Amino acid sequence: MKDFYPELIELGERAKLAARRLAFTSTAQKNQALLAMAQALIDNQAEILDANSIDVQAAEAKGLKKSLVNRLRLTKEGIVDMSQALKEVVNLPDPVGEGEFWTRPNGLRIQRTRVPLGVVAMIYEARPNVTVDAAGLCLKSGNAVILRGGSEAIESNKVLTKVIAEAAERSGIPSGSIQLVQNTEREWAQQLMKMNAYVDVIIPRGGAGLIQTVVQEATVPVIETGTGVCHAYVDREANLDKAVKIVFNAKTQKPGVCNALETVLVDESVAGEYLPLIGAEFEKFGVEIRGCSHTCLLLPYAKPAVEEDWSTEYLDLIISVKVVSGLDQALDHIYKYSTKHSETIITENYTRAQRFLNEVDAAAVYVNASTRFTDGGRFGFGAEIGISTQKLHARGPMGLKELTTVKYVIFGEDQIVT
Amino acid sequence: MKDFYPELIELGERAKLAARRLAFTSTAQKNQALLAMAQALIDNQAEILDANSIDVQAAEAKGLKKSLVNRLRLTKEGIVDMSQALKEVVNLPDPVGEGEFWTRPNGLRIQRTRVPLGVVAMIYEARPNVTVDAAGLCLKSGNAVILRGGSEAIESNKVLTKVIAEAAERSGIPSGSIQLVQNTEREWAQQLMKMNAYVDVIIPRGGAGLIQTVVQEATVPVIETGTGVCHAYVDREANLDKAVKIVFNAKTQKPGVCNALETVLVDESVAGEYLPLIGAEFEKFGVEIRGCSHTCLLLPYAKPAVEEDWSTEYLDLIISVKVVSGLDQALDHIYKYSTKHSETIITENYTRAQRFLNEVDAAAVYVNASTRFTDGGRFGFGAEIGISTQKLHARGPMGLKELTTVKYVIFGEDQIVT
Repeated sequence: MKDFYPELIELGERAKLAARRLAFTSTAQKNQALLAMAQALIDNQAEILDANSIDVQAAEAKGLKKSLVNRLRLTKEGIVDMSQALKEVVNLPDPVGEGEFWTRPNGLRIQRTRVPLGVVAMIYEARPNVTVDAAGLCLKSGNAVILRGGSEAIESNKVLTKVIAEAAERSGIPSGSIQLVQNTEREWAQQLMKMNAYVDVIIPRGGAGLIQTVVQEATVPVIETGTGVCHAYVDREANLDKAVKIVFNAKTQKPGVCNALETVLVDESVAGEYLPLIGAEFEKFGVEIRGCSHTCLLLPYAKPAVEEDWSTEYLDLIISVKVVSGLDQALDHIYKYSTKHSETIITENYTRAQRFLNEVDAAAVYVNASTRFTDGGRFGFGAEIGISTQKLHARGPMGLKELTTVKYVIFGEDQIVT
Repeated sequence: MKDFYPELIELGERAKLAARRLAFTSTAQKNQALLAMAQALIDNQAEILDANSIDVQAAEAKGLKKSLVNRLRLTKEGIVDMSQALKEVVNLPDPVGEGEFWTRPNGLRIQRTRVPLGVVAMIYEARPNVTVDAAGLCLKSGNAVILRGGSEAIESNKVLTKVIAEAAERSGIPSGSIQLVQNTEREWAQQLMKMNAYVDVIIPRGGAGLIQTVVQEATVPVIETGTGVCHAYVDREANLDKAVKIVFNAKTQKPGVCNALETVLVDESVAGEYLPLIGAEFEKFGVEIRGCSHTCLLLPYAKPAVEEDWSTEYLDLIISVKVVSGLDQALDHIYKYSTKHSETIITENYTRAQRFLNEVDAAAVYVNASTRFTDGGRFGFGAEIGISTQKLHARGPMGLKELTTVKYVIFGEDQIVT
């Protein structure tokens, strides 16, 4: 055992003990707790808003970027939304206790049943709504959760966690099921990532830097989420109206999210016609274009792209554009620069559409649709705890089922192996 | 990018390129390659046996434990078995390309389809049959494999890999699909574990030391396999004949494997009757008993157990025995010492059986059956690449399906997010 901070060990032990009981807490009881948590947010909104305004003032005083301050800020409406999100989790089916069943020739009856993962640690940035969302999804799936949010949101997170954890406990949920790491120093997160004896999985949510740190440092299994350098390939047989509509939507509808578009690849035979069309739309909307040399010839307002652009997730009104010789070069570009999140081809050609779908390695591959659809709600799964861009355990939007594992339950008479 | 050995980078690049093509190689072609590999083992048995005898002689000269030398040694029959194992993989269903399909209200059609993981790295000990088994299962599931076996088996592994990789290539499988890390120095494995840009998953197979090293050092996602401190709990309402039969089988039928029993917990109200019965069987068979003080009073030939015994996977004819006050103490003991592999209760009592099944957190939990059944073949899955004792991605016996992930394939007309 490493020298973990005693407070973290205590947190871990409380979480493990809670998880042991939560694993067979009934769906009805978990739903009752979720409703109580939703109500408690409303009942305690004054205290929550007070704590949040301390965080917001500190963030503004520190000169935090305005978009980050906005993510941090809570309003009455925001609290209602968080409360509503918990109520929606009530309506999602509980995956725990579902499964298959078969009988072996020797009479052994084997049940493959879904069970909670155990203890989930969430490491995330200064977004207080993640505190509530993660607690609700972990509770519904029978997991204890250890929350470690960004330091800028600490006062908000303390109050939010207290309010929902107390409400859950009053509904009979084991104490320790929802806990916050109250210390936001870096070392505490680093230790949490190595507490294999207490934590079953770590889910980092946030920017590429945060996620890579967790991937590199954690010894606890990690589900990588989020980074998306998403591409659209405009094929030589694309319907150019669709190509303008889809590419514009994927870039501009909500540029700060992981499924937003970052790069457009255009077949050279339609570049002369297509790029001025999409370029005009982008220019009107204030989207900065960073183009390859061919693009810059066609679009005088484009800036020249540098190598780094092809691997950058802008999360902003910036797009990189490259003219390619055809599908093969597009596939090679995507193979080299994709973060394996979401990729789309715009084409009317059946065979090239199929090749793109088969050959691109990503969580979600599209024909003639916006990459912005990669989302638990839009796929029909309900709320998501993140979007996995790795291949183990979960890929794409992760809902309640992805917060569970399986257990084999075997009923025998007196079977032995011979 | 870290400073990886150029040879490893080259290996990784070859594997990635192979994986890119393997992902959409047809089942028929993969099966044809498996049959060719099976035949090639037979055709090249003289060369394989020659290489193996170099390994065996070196191992004997180094004074390697006899059981390890036996695991290393290949015979004509052993080669036939390896060849047969490849043929059996032909008969297993290919999970790639299977999945579900639904349509969203906006008309988007979403396919959730199984795809290979990509590049699988296997790190294992000096067991040449793992080389062939892993190559066969990875190929069938469309993955490129990088094999890193124990140094004592290096000459055997070189020849085996060459023989099967060449046979696969002749059947049209991309070159680079099956590769061996030829350098057995520790640093090479350490680098392999950190090559996230090339390797999608690492599966360590072997003793607890090897597995813990990989878990601690790898930045590539790991599927932990194997260690089993498996328990049997003999309840106060156990049928003692069944309890003798099952416990004896689970300990002695094949003691060197992970699903063999290591600890028996006995309810104190039946200990006086049960322990002499099972003790006599163990004594006859030469099983060493390490007991708690109560056990030692009842069984004069038992040695006193020390704290370390309760967490030891003996993999040998040794068993630890503890008398407990009832189910709760048994559950607490298992909670504390279990490696979450396989646990069994022997009882005729319905409610305690159900409590044991619900409350024990392990890959497989049994009533009135031997823990030795935790095995891909015995569960009805076919050949397994290992038994996962962790909770992410796969738990329990891992077959072909566990060597795949999913990909969302979305067919649109021109859908955008509004």
